[in-house]
Amino acid sequence: MKIETHTVHFTSPLYLESGRILEPYEIRYETYGKINEAKDNVILVCHALSGSHHASGLYEGDRKAGWWNNLIGDGKAIDTNRYFVICSNVIGSCFGSTGPMSEMYPSLQPYRLKFPVVTIKDMVRAQRQLLSYMGIHQLKAIIGGSMGGMQALQFAVDYPNLAEQIIPMATTYATRPWVIAFNKVAIEAIRRDPRFNNGNYSRDEFREDGCDGLAIGRIAGHISYLSPESMDRKFGRNYVATDGLFELFGRYEVERYMEYNTNNFSRSFDPLSYLYIVKAINTFNLSRGYDSLYEAVSRIKAKVHLISFAGDYLFFPEEMKHLANMLKRNNQKYSYHEIESDYGHDAFLVEIDKFDAIIKEILEVES
Amino acid sequence: MKIETHTVHFTSPLYLESGRILEPYEIRYETYGKINEAKDNVILVCHALSGSHHASGLYEGDRKAGWWNNLIGDGKAIDTNRYFVICSNVIGSCFGSTGPMSEMYPSLQPYRLKFPVVTIKDMVRAQRQLLSYMGIHQLKAIIGGSMGGMQALQFAVDYPNLAEQIIPMATTYATRPWVIAFNKVAIEAIRRDPRFNNGNYSRDEFREDGCDGLAIGRIAGHISYLSPESMDRKFGRNYVATDGLFELFGRYEVERYMEYNTNNFSRSFDPLSYLYIVKAINTFNLSRGYDSLYEAVSRIKAKVHLISFAGDYLFFPEEMKHLANMLKRNNQKYSYHEIESDYGHDAFLVEIDKFDAIIKEILEVES
Repeated sequence: MKIETHTVHFTSPLYLESGRILEPYEIRYETYGKINEAKDNVILVCHALSGSHHASGLYEGDRKAGWWNNLIGDGKAIDTNRYFVICSNVIGSCFGSTGPMSEMYPSLQPYRLKFPVVTIKDMVRAQRQLLSYMGIHQLKAIIGGSMGGMQALQFAVDYPNLAEQIIPMATTYATRPWVIAFNKVAIEAIRRDPRFNNGNYSRDEFREDGCDGLAIGRIAGHISYLSPESMDRKFGRNYVATDGLFELFGRYEVERYMEYNTNNFSRSFDPLSYLYIVKAINTFNLSRGYDSLYEAVSRIKAKVHLISFAGDYLFFPEEMKHLANMLKRNNQKYSYHEIESDYGHDAFLVEIDKFDAIIKEILEVES
Repeated sequence: MKIETHTVHFTSPLYLESGRILEPYEIRYETYGKINEAKDNVILVCHALSGSHHASGLYEGDRKAGWWNNLIGDGKAIDTNRYFVICSNVIGSCFGSTGPMSEMYPSLQPYRLKFPVVTIKDMVRAQRQLLSYMGIHQLKAIIGGSMGGMQALQFAVDYPNLAEQIIPMATTYATRPWVIAFNKVAIEAIRRDPRFNNGNYSRDEFREDGCDGLAIGRIAGHISYLSPESMDRKFGRNYVATDGLFELFGRYEVERYMEYNTNNFSRSFDPLSYLYIVKAINTFNLSRGYDSLYEAVSRIKAKVHLISFAGDYLFFPEEMKHLANMLKRNNQKYSYHEIESDYGHDAFLVEIDKFDAIIKEILEVES
């Protein structure tokens, strides 16, 4: 599989939903496979909250492959022998695309809290610019889970002629207060962290010790990514050290998992980016800018393949079923798949073997 | 309704499950109604994590009545014209019973992190001492929700001859990793709060500003006390200020609710007590000290009335159903009631009108 990583610098303004402008801006992206002459073998992959453009493959010296490595590659469900796959880092993030720690032109200083609020619509618009820049005007498919699924849906509504099909997974049409509440933990924990210092931290501030606020918020996140059943199976009531039961800070396995995952994360992810991306998730509402959800959904011309997970405690299958019912009543092209899984929301990243055949079939039948 | 509040000072040691000893210790408790001559009209009420001995009635000058005011009182389901109701503050808490900020005898200094870990079993043992002190050796019923329900179950297993019936609500037989994970947010947020200072804060430290760590942890708690459905109904996607949509820290209604509730709480509840009580909840396992859950449950002689709530996302109805099935297979006296509610875990405090008739009937039929 041929992997390339690029960064494009756009000097034209990006008009944001808020009325503000991002100018200039950069988008970092990765591609897998080769584009054909007709430029009609392109699949766009959209990443989630903590993801990046690095969706597949292994960088030299790295131990961890891209986040959808088992789905994207030569002979895999998203077959890079056949398709040209693009994944870009969303604006607002911290992996190379313009975000709050980018320089606020013409100063050399980071935006920090002066960075404009970006929305899923804005993320999608920026990616649309990237595609135009690449001379791509037609997509085989747009696929993504969680916030990536939001982008797939927003693409289909805002640019109805762009993609033949979209595959939104483990996502929703409008973020519910349940999700906003989970995000609130992160927002408050980051804001109240003295070292966050109202966004005025140094670039190296968290490299060694990590941002406590981000780590704490991420624990709440990880709860929402799992499920009671998956935690029973993964951790049970096991103790890290058997003598810890009567130690105040003795830890259960589930606590160690939370510490390990969140402490690492809080060293590598930028807390300002986290605040901005969480804001984008909170404000996601497919019907904003349209008269109703029905009107927004009616615009879709792509075939919509909805994939939900039975044990998803963040975006419940009911939410995607609601969309499916709307598409059905409206005689739009769609398919709905609920994957049997009690893994939780993270299933879209972890239990790939449970749905890759579905994606393979969707792409093959329609191609 | 006659209300009395007392504090008893015990000079005899309380032997804890950890092997440590609490000596001396105090228990603050409240009583409602009058005890009869035979002392056989007594109902013990057990409180939850953030509760206190103040279960009913209104203190002079207070605006907020006790936490089960609508359930306990003259002519109410727990009828104080008929029953003598006792509710005591659990050890480890911060409302008058011995806890981490109590003086560590013989010093005049607070225990702080030297306070021993207490368990549900220990809380129950301390209340058993209180009852003995009061000359009460027989209870009509023990009732409680959440951590209060854990106490009711533990009472029935450890002291099988004490209560005629127990009514555990919205609770479980062993705390699952799902719940431990929610509590982890509070543990980490409190520990990492610089003003918590490893437990060495002054008594007035949080009176005005509140403890940020506790506030953050409490947000996670409040998520687990509600449900996606209850949040939809309570808050929807409403914004506090309509112009806040594109403000990074503009707030949704659900966010305001979380801020309001948790900031108040973080001024009035002691963060060390929170850590200790959360530990007691985490370590709750009805089978500890017995060969199996089956063996523990087999000890119960009281009739067990289990009340669960369909929309409880903290302690799921399945957990109480599991207990009910065990009691059934074992031919023990029980009843199981699942209340139709999408309010979430808090239903046991909020939707009293949905279950007070059941409790009234349980108490009347059995009396």
